Amino acid sequence: MWEQAIEQIQPLAKDWLERARTRLDSLTKPRGSLGVLEDIAERVVAIRQEDNPVLGKKEVFVFVGDHGVVSEGVSAYPQEVTAAMVRNFLNGGAAINVLARCVGAQVSVIDIGMREDLRSAHGLIRRKVRRGTGNIAREPAMTVEQAEKAMNVGVETAEEAYARGVSMIATGDMGIGNTTPSSALFSALLPTDVASVVGKGTGLDQQGITHKVQVIETALKAHHACLGEPLATLAAVGGLEIAGICGLCLGGAARRMIVVVDGFISTAGALVAMRLNPVVQDYLFFSHQSSETGHQTFFQKEGIRPILDLDLRLGEGTGAALVMHLIEDAVRIYNEMATFEEAGIAPGA
Amino acid sequence: MWEQAIEQIQPLAKDWLERARTRLDSLTKPRGSLGVLEDIAERVVAIRQEDNPVLGKKEVFVFVGDHGVVSEGVSAYPQEVTAAMVRNFLNGGAAINVLARCVGAQVSVIDIGMREDLRSAHGLIRRKVRRGTGNIAREPAMTVEQAEKAMNVGVETAEEAYARGVSMIATGDMGIGNTTPSSALFSALLPTDVASVVGKGTGLDQQGITHKVQVIETALKAHHACLGEPLATLAAVGGLEIAGICGLCLGGAARRMIVVVDGFISTAGALVAMRLNPVVQDYLFFSHQSSETGHQTFFQKEGIRPILDLDLRLGEGTGAALVMHLIEDAVRIYNEMATFEEAGIAPGA
Repeated sequence: MWEQAIEQIQPLAKDWLERARTRLDSLTKPRGSLGVLEDIAERVVAIRQEDNPVLGKKEVFVFVGDHGVVSEGVSAYPQEVTAAMVRNFLNGGAAINVLARCVGAQVSVIDIGMREDLRSAHGLIRRKVRRGTGNIAREPAMTVEQAEKAMNVGVETAEEAYARGVSMIATGDMGIGNTTPSSALFSALLPTDVASVVGKGTGLDQQGITHKVQVIETALKAHHACLGEPLATLAAVGGLEIAGICGLCLGGAARRMIVVVDGFISTAGALVAMRLNPVVQDYLFFSHQSSETGHQTFFQKEGIRPILDLDLRLGEGTGAALVMHLIEDAVRIYNEMATFEEAGIAPGA
Repeated sequence: MWEQAIEQIQPLAKDWLERARTRLDSLTKPRGSLGVLEDIAERVVAIRQEDNPVLGKKEVFVFVGDHGVVSEGVSAYPQEVTAAMVRNFLNGGAAINVLARCVGAQVSVIDIGMREDLRSAHGLIRRKVRRGTGNIAREPAMTVEQAEKAMNVGVETAEEAYARGVSMIATGDMGIGNTTPSSALFSALLPTDVASVVGKGTGLDQQGITHKVQVIETALKAHHACLGEPLATLAAVGGLEIAGICGLCLGGAARRMIVVVDGFISTAGALVAMRLNPVVQDYLFFSHQSSETGHQTFFQKEGIRPILDLDLRLGEGTGAALVMHLIEDAVRIYNEMATFEEAGIAPGA
């Protein structure tokens, strides 16, 4: 399934990009003076292949998984918070619920690998691949088959959204401890040294960060033989929600959807997708640079400019939801502004 | 009138700021993990002095003026474009119309100093102080009395908006050539050397920029005796729309409104207001860092962090309109998120 998605992803057509730029340059403003908004509009037109792109339904997907590595003491919060926050999502009280409401997006919460089952929880989408990952400092996070299964959950999620008429999707995550596997993935796949991609997560102090670096170095040493190949790396040191996000990116791109990538964890999933097929990047909108240190390293190494920089470090899809507004704004600029000809003004510079 | 506004501006009350921070820290997220959104919410609560701030009506004010210094060849566009763009605003076809519609804000266009009258233009608010400024390279932009009159137009505009129930206002500008007086104001009031605050405006090449620096240096030399005192500086090398924006900032702050400052030109107006009364800054939200070089110099010198950095360089209030979304998002986070207690989660870090 994920292999098919990868084959379906097409690079953006140059003629659509040029067509979009021609219209942008005809609008009543100095060329390029709306900066990043124009770049966004250009890409949306080429992704949607529409002269007047209509952004229909929007949806945020929060993939939830637990992490065996939490037993190494890498997080400021206990593992039970994963399930408690899922209840909060389902009750509409979390930050992602509020920000999704602000932009009119639906929130879907997917149990792709929680330890708990939350049997009585209404509205939870149950796609559990396994009960949390293994402790990556001692064992693989999951098998390669499980990683593929989790990626396929993401691809299917994108397919189902496509079938519902969704055109813009956002990645989101929840999983206590998940900055640790994310940092491990960044270190292995960028590649770069561990210290440059490790931050305080939800609230570690300097001692906690030093310990986290050691745990990740141990994990990378333990799984050294598997590293480099993206799927094997994901299975060895990744996470179930990260694999789901990776699949969502691939499936969304295969269906020509606008894929808005949230913060540090989501970017780790996106990075795995990019290493499987670099063309996926044409469909990804990196919403913000998190205050998690390693995120900046990713953007620098990959030469990507994130849209916002607001010191967010919450995850859940919060930064992506904020950026959905800006993408809609950019599309409306494209569709609704008067041209120089319509306004009777000479184009000038 | 502007003097009264200055006297009315109160610093934000510490108890309201603390109250806001206490609530933010009680919400189901790691402390501070919504970064700049939290800072925005905190300030809004203290400005509005409401436990559940309600953002009511929003309005963007585009002040329009012409500039005698255009005859020195400092702009890529001819002066007639000012009036043509005003027609475009009134027809709803400009970028600011689109972005204001996106966020549900009204756009008001104020002739505070256009050369033309546009007698037949419907919807234009006619508060002309004079027909364009003098050529600052040779004469003062305006008299001190005219500068005060233009500032009062801004203060009155804020008063009228307040009376209409508007709680969030955005500054906007239109005026071919207005990066030149803005750069002159930055140089005189930051203060800093001219070259560090001059950019390409709507589209100058390197030669054009060098010429623009020379024109501004000539202007600053010609009016050397007046510089330093903010009002005299504004009159000598400023612009009518810049004075209007300065007044809008003061009047908005006096009435405890949220004042969203747009780009380079608007910031020049805000800087004059800050030099008249530094407390006004408590009420100002600097929406974005423009790609106009000097804007960065302002933020560095003043130690202010702009909210967005999207390479915008259009003015009109476009960046401010974008940020109105984010301010609304921040307020809804504050009002609508569940607390740890409500969600039954231990607060953690």
